[in-house]
Amino acid sequence: MLPYLTEKYGNASSLHRWGQAALTALDQARRTIAEILNADPKEIVFTSGGSESDNLALRGVAMALRAKGPQAHIITTPIEHHAILNTAAQLEREFGFEVTRVPVDRRGGVNPDDIARALTPRTVLISVMYANNEVGTVEPLAEIARMAKKRGVLFHTDAVQAGGYLPLDVNELGVDLMSLGAHKFHGPKGVGVLYVRAGTPLLPMQTGGSHERSRRAGTENIPYIVGIATALKIAQDERAATNVRLTALRDKMVEGILERIVGAELTGDPKNRLPGHASFVIPGAIGDEMVLGLDLAGVAASTGSACTAGSAEPSHVLAAMGYPADVARGALRLTLGRGNTDAEVEYAVNAAAEVVGKLRGTSGG
Amino acid sequence: MLPYLTEKYGNASSLHRWGQAALTALDQARRTIAEILNADPKEIVFTSGGSESDNLALRGVAMALRAKGPQAHIITTPIEHHAILNTAAQLEREFGFEVTRVPVDRRGGVNPDDIARALTPRTVLISVMYANNEVGTVEPLAEIARMAKKRGVLFHTDAVQAGGYLPLDVNELGVDLMSLGAHKFHGPKGVGVLYVRAGTPLLPMQTGGSHERSRRAGTENIPYIVGIATALKIAQDERAATNVRLTALRDKMVEGILERIVGAELTGDPKNRLPGHASFVIPGAIGDEMVLGLDLAGVAASTGSACTAGSAEPSHVLAAMGYPADVARGALRLTLGRGNTDAEVEYAVNAAAEVVGKLRGTSGG
Repeated sequence: MLPYLTEKYGNASSLHRWGQAALTALDQARRTIAEILNADPKEIVFTSGGSESDNLALRGVAMALRAKGPQAHIITTPIEHHAILNTAAQLEREFGFEVTRVPVDRRGGVNPDDIARALTPRTVLISVMYANNEVGTVEPLAEIARMAKKRGVLFHTDAVQAGGYLPLDVNELGVDLMSLGAHKFHGPKGVGVLYVRAGTPLLPMQTGGSHERSRRAGTENIPYIVGIATALKIAQDERAATNVRLTALRDKMVEGILERIVGAELTGDPKNRLPGHASFVIPGAIGDEMVLGLDLAGVAASTGSACTAGSAEPSHVLAAMGYPADVARGALRLTLGRGNTDAEVEYAVNAAAEVVGKLRGTSGG
Repeated sequence: MLPYLTEKYGNASSLHRWGQAALTALDQARRTIAEILNADPKEIVFTSGGSESDNLALRGVAMALRAKGPQAHIITTPIEHHAILNTAAQLEREFGFEVTRVPVDRRGGVNPDDIARALTPRTVLISVMYANNEVGTVEPLAEIARMAKKRGVLFHTDAVQAGGYLPLDVNELGVDLMSLGAHKFHGPKGVGVLYVRAGTPLLPMQTGGSHERSRRAGTENIPYIVGIATALKIAQDERAATNVRLTALRDKMVEGILERIVGAELTGDPKNRLPGHASFVIPGAIGDEMVLGLDLAGVAASTGSACTAGSAEPSHVLAAMGYPADVARGALRLTLGRGNTDAEVEYAVNAAAEVVGKLRGTSGG
């Protein structure tokens, strides 16, 4: 990214050499992403991040298709990221759309039959996340996609949490739109991608210049676009090996926590989950307090989503999965990245046990 | 910016120390911007750039106030950046708003009386740019603001081109909303600010987490936010001295071009214009060809706006100012930044004269 922050700082829309150098980098990044997604470069829209990608997918399709009826209908789930949930809610409240949120099971899994039952002749879009950020559960996208296609309904997936770890071939997945955010696979914060299948109706939500084929106006952030492409390429190239290693480390971490902390319960699906993702509810401890205690020990943990950290509300994801509020308040999430080691997992398990012990006022977990 | 791209990479919404370090930088950047704008830090919204700021201002206010009537009314000008023009057009075409574009004079100046005459009881927003990007003309914001205030109508200004060069005190200017983009004052491309006066109704257009006080969701781009604040601080601190120098250099450049290129005409206001901004129409030469010729000589020039470069359409700004299409096709823009020198101005004038001479098939300008 650095050359594009220093010498090669041109505006990719400028005709002169500095602009053309930036444009070349933009085109190359777009081709890199398209290849990984098995898509056409024209189908790649660069955005300012996963939240914008989610917003553009929902708003863009909904607004483009609202002519379908006074109450165009959207199907989603209650465990989506707030970038989906709050956008769906705004479309419902402010713009008259109808939104159905299908239930999930105790492990955070969506049942494709529930989505099939929710379909109406006015349904214009289904949006189901690829993998949940808080509990790691991977959703059955291909099944949902087949049904959506059969019924002629567009299908979007928020793949922000899955990006870099799960397969992203949009044709295998059968999605019409897919959101990615760079910082989930070690890229910079502030850049994302929305994949938009050719022919998908989309009313742009950021208008102006004809950047991104008039689907997203604004001078392109070349350093970050180079960054997301490079980060995704590295993640993709190393994915198979990384996932084997992270899955083993994660299983070890899960076993350690369940063994060392009495009453700890794994949330989400034990097997069908993101490789480096471990999430728990810990009775007798509050999420924020565990995070702060772990921070003192040098461990970066989370309770639910960073986007709602510090909020007094218990996790909407755990609530939808059937956890009562008092149990959900004990949510703890520990996720592993490419760089994490066996020793760090042991350290984190010990630290978590000690922190919970202190919070519980006992001598151990 | 570099530490925030390397060691201090935390998510500002995370509770742990890495997140808190990022949050501290975010808060500091917000205070720096607020101080320069004579605003409250709570009134500063960080965006992905000038285009997003313009979109959020127009869409946000329009959508929040559409309850005022089935045809809420917006007043703007025909020389705005496309981020305003195309957003206004979409609000008109897709969402039933009424838009009035008041005329401008031959120098690109807006007459506040024209805006006063365009006001209706349904008017919810006036949006007039601070300084035009293509011809440099500075608009009479304070007069428009006084009238808007008297009539109880919100006033937005696109200050993207003015940022770093003209005074940005929002109370002196009397604006309710103001857009800035970092790369106009040597900051990075991909970050902007929307100033939103406390109490201004604004329906968020990017929903999700509660970032930016729920006015703009999405994990914050800390390196760029640090970048825009630092760049604006430097520009502000050096503004008086820079402007004196750039104005002299620009006058020299304008004189040189008018002297060396037969028939060249300065566009925009000769005095009431941005310090480093020179723009012309050159008969017998096409804008894109001049830019490419100057590029070969190592001079980065523009014809109209980079955001529409390469488009066959002549400038909408020059058209609104009364220039016929064949004259407007000869548009050339030469702008100076902090680093430019006297020798570079001489070089650029010579290069422009030679390029135009070649294009005209004569031995000189």
